[in-house]
Amino acid sequence: MIIALDAAGGDYAPHEVVKGAIKGAQEYGVEIALVGRKDILYVLAGRYLGKLGISIVDASQVVDSHGSPIEAVRNKPDSSISVGINLVKTGVASAFISAGNTGAVFYSSLVTLGKIKGIDRPAIASIINIHTATPVLLIDSGANADCRPEHLVQFAQLGTTYAKAIFGIDSPRIGLLNNGEEEGKGNRLTKASYRLLKKTGLNFIGNIEGHDISRERCDVVVTDGFTGNIVLKTVEGLGETFLKLRQVGQILSNAYQIQGRALLIDVGLGSLIKRIDYRQYGGACLLGVNGNVIISHGRSQATAIKNAIGLAKRTAEQHVSQKIQEETYEPVAPVE
Amino acid sequence: MIIALDAAGGDYAPHEVVKGAIKGAQEYGVEIALVGRKDILYVLAGRYLGKLGISIVDASQVVDSHGSPIEAVRNKPDSSISVGINLVKTGVASAFISAGNTGAVFYSSLVTLGKIKGIDRPAIASIINIHTATPVLLIDSGANADCRPEHLVQFAQLGTTYAKAIFGIDSPRIGLLNNGEEEGKGNRLTKASYRLLKKTGLNFIGNIEGHDISRERCDVVVTDGFTGNIVLKTVEGLGETFLKLRQVGQILSNAYQIQGRALLIDVGLGSLIKRIDYRQYGGACLLGVNGNVIISHGRSQATAIKNAIGLAKRTAEQHVSQKIQEETYEPVAPVE
Repeated sequence: MIIALDAAGGDYAPHEVVKGAIKGAQEYGVEIALVGRKDILYVLAGRYLGKLGISIVDASQVVDSHGSPIEAVRNKPDSSISVGINLVKTGVASAFISAGNTGAVFYSSLVTLGKIKGIDRPAIASIINIHTATPVLLIDSGANADCRPEHLVQFAQLGTTYAKAIFGIDSPRIGLLNNGEEEGKGNRLTKASYRLLKKTGLNFIGNIEGHDISRERCDVVVTDGFTGNIVLKTVEGLGETFLKLRQVGQILSNAYQIQGRALLIDVGLGSLIKRIDYRQYGGACLLGVNGNVIISHGRSQATAIKNAIGLAKRTAEQHVSQKIQEETYEPVAPVE
Repeated sequence: MIIALDAAGGDYAPHEVVKGAIKGAQEYGVEIALVGRKDILYVLAGRYLGKLGISIVDASQVVDSHGSPIEAVRNKPDSSISVGINLVKTGVASAFISAGNTGAVFYSSLVTLGKIKGIDRPAIASIINIHTATPVLLIDSGANADCRPEHLVQFAQLGTTYAKAIFGIDSPRIGLLNNGEEEGKGNRLTKASYRLLKKTGLNFIGNIEGHDISRERCDVVVTDGFTGNIVLKTVEGLGETFLKLRQVGQILSNAYQIQGRALLIDVGLGSLIKRIDYRQYGGACLLGVNGNVIISHGRSQATAIKNAIGLAKRTAEQHVSQKIQEETYEPVAPVE
């Protein structure tokens, strides 16, 4: 299996991306096609070529992390993002990973790979693992800021397929993220979405609230991309705050030579910190396009990239994109 | 100063509310009017009457925590909520606190106290204190699920007045909660709100993202009530998860007789846990009605009620409702 990796995307590219690629190739036994400027990549990864399944695919252009996605895709046909996605399109690679401009990855995937028939709005499915047991999938976590009720139903369908494949759950429980638990609560979008979701054959458990995300009430949290993005980043922000405070605690503990610190951290708070750290999964899957695309955090360093490779491998092994293509989702009537 | 307290509202009423009232009266030196069924309240608080400034105001009806707010207000004119808000309306009490049905408190406040001139949508301002330094105000944290851009500008105006009064800040920094930092990011609502906020004389610092809530980038986070509710509950849910894990850590630490645990918890994680625990402030202020109304969490126990009394006292001392009445906010042109 070959996984294409955008070596020019993200705040720590190319060094950390290459480091993560080498770790990932070792740990997961996959081949990695590093996509980026070949002169730079030969310097960084030349000695691994032919070993560990590392290869280099030249892409002369780089997409800025904050520029217009549409212009980037139009004006830079030889960017690492376009070249990498083409490797998936042509069947050379089983998946593409990028920590670069999310909008450009999204737009390029739409243009090059195309939407899967029956899916109006491809969406980003992020894995959130706050609690000590099973993780939850948050969809849409950022692709579609303005949604209609039928889009949320499609997110629920995509999320069901993905949770089955990735978590190995037979009938994932779908929760609609809302501002109240009872039927009838919500804004216009969630009220109408609730009515539609009830009519589907999905395992829809009803509304869930913000605090339920960390309570394992459902396997898939369905929301619009605006709310999903804010929830994901709020959780990430708290994770960072904990990491910082843990460091303060460690420095003080070391200074005072206190014993027992390790146990406390490992049993309780340590595992929690790890679980709400975005680096644990390293990426989120773009669902609904013809191909497996993993979007990583812009701040990804080697560990996050390595973990994204693990997620990409699992996504490709499970034939996620193909499963979505083959799935016959019930059509959803638009709501006026 | 007399503060009216809904002794029939919330999951732990009346026992915990009465306990909190006694603690609050002692700690803050205010008089508390307990509003509820007088037969029950005489049993619970009879021995404090005349001492500590505790009094009882009879209200024969109770509003269910999950029923329809509008029906509750219409059909139960002698509910603890209606009677309590009337004490504010008639000037007997300087503020009203309830942990009961939020919708009923909101609706009853609108009907009985009325909206302040110039304010279309009264909103709930919650205090979030994640980091070690200053807290932030989240407005609207739940009153208005569907908003228009001009409502968000009014929330920014209300939040500015409240942050000045409660935090003692001269020029509170206003951040618009959004799914990206750059101007032009967002959904339809936030894009239009950004353009309006830029034109005001408020200290508008631009868009902030979910992770910025715990990074002290602004003093007031402006958002619609749907998103605000979900963010607030997500933060609360994480707080609870931490509390649980801390307990696990403590049990294990005790079992193994490990030293030094206290230091780690007190310096770092302990203070964080306290800060994201809703009990710390005990309530959120309903801004934009003619009177000071504090909405407490349905799960409030004695400590949360006591802290809500502290917040109510500060809100009343600072004449928050009056300041909003006197403020000449710039009118906001509706956006089509």
